[in-house]
Amino acid sequence: MSDPRYEAMWEKLNLDIPAHDALLGVLGQFYGDIYMSQKGRLQGMEYLDFVLSEVHGLRIQELQEAKSKGHKIIGTFCVFVPEELTLAANAVHIGLCSGADAGTEQAETLLPRNTCALIKSFVGFKMARICPFTESCDMVVGETTCDGKKKAYETFGEMVNMHVMELPQTKSDAARALFRSEVLRYKEKLEALTGNTITVEKLRAAISTVNNKRKALQRLDALRSADPSPISGRDALLIHQVAFYDDPVRFTASINALCDQMETRVKKQEGVTAKGTPRILLSGCPMAVPNWKLPYITESSGAVIVGEESCIGTRNIRNLTDEKTEDMDGLIDALVDRYMEIDCACFTPNTERMGHVVSMAKELKADGVLHYGLMFCQPYASEAIRLEKVLRKEEIPMLAIETDYSMEDMEQLKTRVEAFVEMIR
Amino acid sequence: MSDPRYEAMWEKLNLDIPAHDALLGVLGQFYGDIYMSQKGRLQGMEYLDFVLSEVHGLRIQELQEAKSKGHKIIGTFCVFVPEELTLAANAVHIGLCSGADAGTEQAETLLPRNTCALIKSFVGFKMARICPFTESCDMVVGETTCDGKKKAYETFGEMVNMHVMELPQTKSDAARALFRSEVLRYKEKLEALTGNTITVEKLRAAISTVNNKRKALQRLDALRSADPSPISGRDALLIHQVAFYDDPVRFTASINALCDQMETRVKKQEGVTAKGTPRILLSGCPMAVPNWKLPYITESSGAVIVGEESCIGTRNIRNLTDEKTEDMDGLIDALVDRYMEIDCACFTPNTERMGHVVSMAKELKADGVLHYGLMFCQPYASEAIRLEKVLRKEEIPMLAIETDYSMEDMEQLKTRVEAFVEMIR
Repeated sequence: MSDPRYEAMWEKLNLDIPAHDALLGVLGQFYGDIYMSQKGRLQGMEYLDFVLSEVHGLRIQELQEAKSKGHKIIGTFCVFVPEELTLAANAVHIGLCSGADAGTEQAETLLPRNTCALIKSFVGFKMARICPFTESCDMVVGETTCDGKKKAYETFGEMVNMHVMELPQTKSDAARALFRSEVLRYKEKLEALTGNTITVEKLRAAISTVNNKRKALQRLDALRSADPSPISGRDALLIHQVAFYDDPVRFTASINALCDQMETRVKKQEGVTAKGTPRILLSGCPMAVPNWKLPYITESSGAVIVGEESCIGTRNIRNLTDEKTEDMDGLIDALVDRYMEIDCACFTPNTERMGHVVSMAKELKADGVLHYGLMFCQPYASEAIRLEKVLRKEEIPMLAIETDYSMEDMEQLKTRVEAFVEMIR
Repeated sequence: MSDPRYEAMWEKLNLDIPAHDALLGVLGQFYGDIYMSQKGRLQGMEYLDFVLSEVHGLRIQELQEAKSKGHKIIGTFCVFVPEELTLAANAVHIGLCSGADAGTEQAETLLPRNTCALIKSFVGFKMARICPFTESCDMVVGETTCDGKKKAYETFGEMVNMHVMELPQTKSDAARALFRSEVLRYKEKLEALTGNTITVEKLRAAISTVNNKRKALQRLDALRSADPSPISGRDALLIHQVAFYDDPVRFTASINALCDQMETRVKKQEGVTAKGTPRILLSGCPMAVPNWKLPYITESSGAVIVGEESCIGTRNIRNLTDEKTEDMDGLIDALVDRYMEIDCACFTPNTERMGHVVSMAKELKADGVLHYGLMFCQPYASEAIRLEKVLRKEEIPMLAIETDYSMEDMEQLKTRVEAFVEMIR
């Protein structure tokens, strides 16, 4: 909804004010329906509620204040862009993936119809001038993880100051060498943009900051192995989503405080649902704010989501960067090693992901896996077929869902998910 | 149709004989309708008619004879796999892309529904056991040019002896280094498979053989700038298709003989259609045998196709390899340079392709460009949008078609193409 406190700022960012007000209205209603309606939530979630209510307000104001102090704002779309380098250049690192069906018609004038909703959304948000994060960016960093994004950045690059990192498609030594050179190129680009030299000291501090954020999220996710689960899947997803645009130090402290509460709950065997509630592991494509459709349907069907095997989830936090080395070459190698471990479907083969899903399902005591594919995402659609076979051998049921950001298939999805929950109960 | 001369060979290759007979029946009927019905064809096309009529017969027999003499058969799907290295290892280099809607249902059990027809077709042909080329291969070489193929090779690799080359996605120095290492890895793989060392002498000879093939095809394509065109687009496409599986030396001689005839025709101002017939440049995705649907519709609508800006067309033959260097490192560099010049939509950016389409349209005096996209091919669908804008500035009309291998949209395509031909007349 419209907010007089921020209107002048939004106008300065050249947002389309009526369209942006409409978006905030929908977002507020969604959040009320999907989040505030939950019972037995953790107190610590109030911080997340506040962050989300101020996502286009206070957080954007903080970005403007950072800019006025000379900090640059870097927008990204992918867990492969090393946040550590951004922070070491005294810049702010923000995720720009969007999860709403707004601006899609405009995006479809520039992108093929058969493009996934996430890509249409970030291009559409820019064209419709409704994203204050995009409008705050001094540079936007893309990467060649899929055909859709790779080609969309050519178009997006005509609207923003764009830097595209080339990602390899295998994990060979030659592929690693390519990625290492791209990491160095990003470092140089950041130094040129910000005027700040990335020193060993700054980079080590940034690696520590980002490791701490990932450790807090690992701690949170591990606590979800308890039955009953101390937190809903919706709330956990929201935390993983907020991780992409909140201040990392503040965020880490809040998540650790939340984990303290969760530990108390687990000890008392308290949870958001009754013990024995069917437990589901989400796996597949990322769910960006406010793409809460499938988690909402799932948890309204009498199940609880206990993990997100996704870029907005474990794929982003599984691996830490070695902090031991003390020279720049060693730190860059540590970053390259860490990022090359990511089990993204952009790699061929990507067999380690199959193992990760199985071990997550076992550790989190999931009764079934819900595979989420964004329509037209070929890499994850391909792996869904492979994953189902792997899970069948382990006798773990899987349901593959393909959808976009529209609400047209809500009833159909409900029917399928309810039947799946009934089956695994 | 069934052919008693080859039945034993097909059985030995473990083909599904009834399904294969059915495929040959459809292929024969298609060829009759689309090719033999043409008037004013060049005499030299009889060679191509023969080659096509024997595509699963005599040519497969030649492959078996080659195998019995110790030569290996290498199957490929892409113009990025260096044929020069294959030939230098005394192996036979064959294209396996397929253009028919057979085996699709089987393929869809292993591949996402939203996969392009070309990929479904080569996987389906294998699963349905109807492709004697695939069954003759000692090794199949894939490449990471698009998400669909990259992930499909993981599945295909469970059915055949598979080698996947990693292609870079940009043309940076680091990307070139990656590709160079992949070229060397392919060379080593070939040497291990064949037991033959690729010497400087053999590689120079192979480069010359492949250059000569490409020169003959360049000569053919250049002659199509004449009005009236001395050859139909269907026949020219067939020649580009046959280039992928015929013996290269025999093929080159036949094409040069055909070009001699074409030159005589051009001098006499004779052609396959009247002077002033609307001229169309095809551009976009490859058309593998027997994917003649759109060329047939176009030339039945009163136009003549004067060029194929496609992998099965100029993208395969535009660039030659430097033959001057005399050491292995220099030859490898020459190959790498040649292949990295390819203007495939897998690269970002790929602006040189836009220039190529414009210059081809001008040189060939095309009245319009027909952009052919395989449904779900995101790279070429993205570039179609970009290309239309570039062509609009040049006042060259463009029609973008997206289709698959089914015949269900024939009437709809006819209506659209006829309207386009009427407009550019």
